[in-house]
Amino acid sequence: MLDQTATMTESRRADPAAPAIAIVGATGAVGVELLRCIEQRGFPYREVRLLASARSAGRTLPFAGGALPIAELTEQSFAGIDIALFSAGATISRRFARAAVDAGAVVVDNSSAFRMEPHVPLVVPEVNGETMAAHSGIIANPNCVAAIMTMALAPLHRAHPIRRLQAATYQSASGAGAAAMQELQDATAAALEGRAFQHSVLPHPYAFNLFSHNAEVDAETGYNGEELKAIAETRRILGTPELPIGMTCVRVPVLRAHSIAMTVAFDAPVAVEEARALLAAAPGVRLVDDRAHNHFPMPVEASGIDDVLVGRVRTDLGDPSGRSLALFVSGDQLLKGAALNAIQIAEQLLPR
Amino acid sequence: MLDQTATMTESRRADPAAPAIAIVGATGAVGVELLRCIEQRGFPYREVRLLASARSAGRTLPFAGGALPIAELTEQSFAGIDIALFSAGATISRRFARAAVDAGAVVVDNSSAFRMEPHVPLVVPEVNGETMAAHSGIIANPNCVAAIMTMALAPLHRAHPIRRLQAATYQSASGAGAAAMQELQDATAAALEGRAFQHSVLPHPYAFNLFSHNAEVDAETGYNGEELKAIAETRRILGTPELPIGMTCVRVPVLRAHSIAMTVAFDAPVAVEEARALLAAAPGVRLVDDRAHNHFPMPVEASGIDDVLVGRVRTDLGDPSGRSLALFVSGDQLLKGAALNAIQIAEQLLPR
Repeated sequence: MLDQTATMTESRRADPAAPAIAIVGATGAVGVELLRCIEQRGFPYREVRLLASARSAGRTLPFAGGALPIAELTEQSFAGIDIALFSAGATISRRFARAAVDAGAVVVDNSSAFRMEPHVPLVVPEVNGETMAAHSGIIANPNCVAAIMTMALAPLHRAHPIRRLQAATYQSASGAGAAAMQELQDATAAALEGRAFQHSVLPHPYAFNLFSHNAEVDAETGYNGEELKAIAETRRILGTPELPIGMTCVRVPVLRAHSIAMTVAFDAPVAVEEARALLAAAPGVRLVDDRAHNHFPMPVEASGIDDVLVGRVRTDLGDPSGRSLALFVSGDQLLKGAALNAIQIAEQLLPR
Repeated sequence: MLDQTATMTESRRADPAAPAIAIVGATGAVGVELLRCIEQRGFPYREVRLLASARSAGRTLPFAGGALPIAELTEQSFAGIDIALFSAGATISRRFARAAVDAGAVVVDNSSAFRMEPHVPLVVPEVNGETMAAHSGIIANPNCVAAIMTMALAPLHRAHPIRRLQAATYQSASGAGAAAMQELQDATAAALEGRAFQHSVLPHPYAFNLFSHNAEVDAETGYNGEELKAIAETRRILGTPELPIGMTCVRVPVLRAHSIAMTVAFDAPVAVEEARALLAAAPGVRLVDDRAHNHFPMPVEASGIDDVLVGRVRTDLGDPSGRSLALFVSGDQLLKGAALNAIQIAEQLLPR
């Protein structure tokens, strides 16, 4: 699905058969992780081209022991590119993704711009990787909550179809970008020193505080944009367009991993031991469920690792029919919730 | 129900008709708030007697412009006391509450020691204040989650009986005491400065992290002690012994207010506007539900105030029958979740 012979350009490495990769939004929190994933996973490339706003052009970013220059993103930026990883927000994706496709690249888009378009696959490789084949130039990388949540749900859903889902999130600063992570740290330092602090990135004070997710709230339903995205995308990734999903998305003073408390209803009771076995066997999932030592998924242990941590597997006491399980999940928002998943999609584009 | 004439002792103030009050656990996070509530609410007293462990005896605590001495708690500490406010944990309550009752005091107990005993009323005054009359010397003050949750649920439940409840908590450090609040601040300062920090109060790292509640986990159900308490006490306070309740209790890096995401099922759909009106009219509840400005209950705004904040009132998209509402609540764990509720109970003991 990727024609490499037609797009070879000068290479920084002696792998002329490997694809040329562009990263749009290279300086963002996710962009930095994309670079790190390419390096750490040994993703083959003959070129890595960093693209960002004019403000960042001319700077460099460390990569593979050297430094890569950042060029300004324009519609002409994609000549010779095979895979374009977009992570600069929906507006940039809407404006430039077509130029990348027209230049012959496959776009893996981390924004919400195309996620609900029928001809654009929305992919978590472990969950619905088979849907990628039908792409027509753009593949969407899901919302972080949807990606992390479906990693925990899919192994159960394959064995026992899910009939209903209730979720409350504990979302980290990283989901709002590098500036929000910095604001959390600056606000907290000020609070500890008794100094005043004026927040500017997020809409509410963040030091030792939490607040309903900063996405705009739909006036009619009262659900915010993050909740509506997570609901729609979870349904699409699981292939259950009618699945009833209730969600509450909350921003907590954590730096980079999202956690989610979930209650999942099935047609019949699912034994805790069976659910644990299904989760433990699932690629990309790590079961952390030690009742005796009160050791369950936590952001500090999920941060910086590829696996999504799942635990607190128990029969939900809120469902008198006994057909629901409760779970608690932590996953790195910047990795499985963004950069790692995008690189895993790109890996599927490589020739076998 | 309180015989004051028999228990008058020397007074620090010229109100010899007012009760003599003992505070057990005066130096704890809740003890300090009990003193502040007595002062701020103008609670009448002829004596306030502070009791604590031998370690604290001899110290003083500021009160009403002066300083009150702390005496060591013994079985002889309660002579002349009318109201004994216990907040030193279940072990101390089990050991000393009987001595206080035998000395003629009414005990308002903030521990879990007696909360499920049938002859001990478990009271949130706005919710089930009428149950107090049947006490036989001990009145239990609920678990903080149960108190805050029932404040939001009761106004709805009175109009439309609740049939099912699902809750995920965002619990602050204060619920684990003053030492945990200090540990959160110390751990966070160390993290910001890149220093190592060894936690000792809570079982997991707390800086920019969250973890499943530190209460012991029941090996059979997988629910932790906090969840089981909150479930049992919520049922008892609402007078719904069979109400199905699912709970996930999580400790978040917030200093002193607890938040709770709830989904509540009724027999039939309840209009959001009606629910809002019921909540707005409820004493001790403040509706904070501004969709246009994304302004909803937050710990920083709930901290230090008496009211429980309730918002994000919306029809739950996870219930296809349309009979469920979602809510988000923040309440000061040390006030309505502990000290304030205890003082409100004590106020009901005063002669009218």
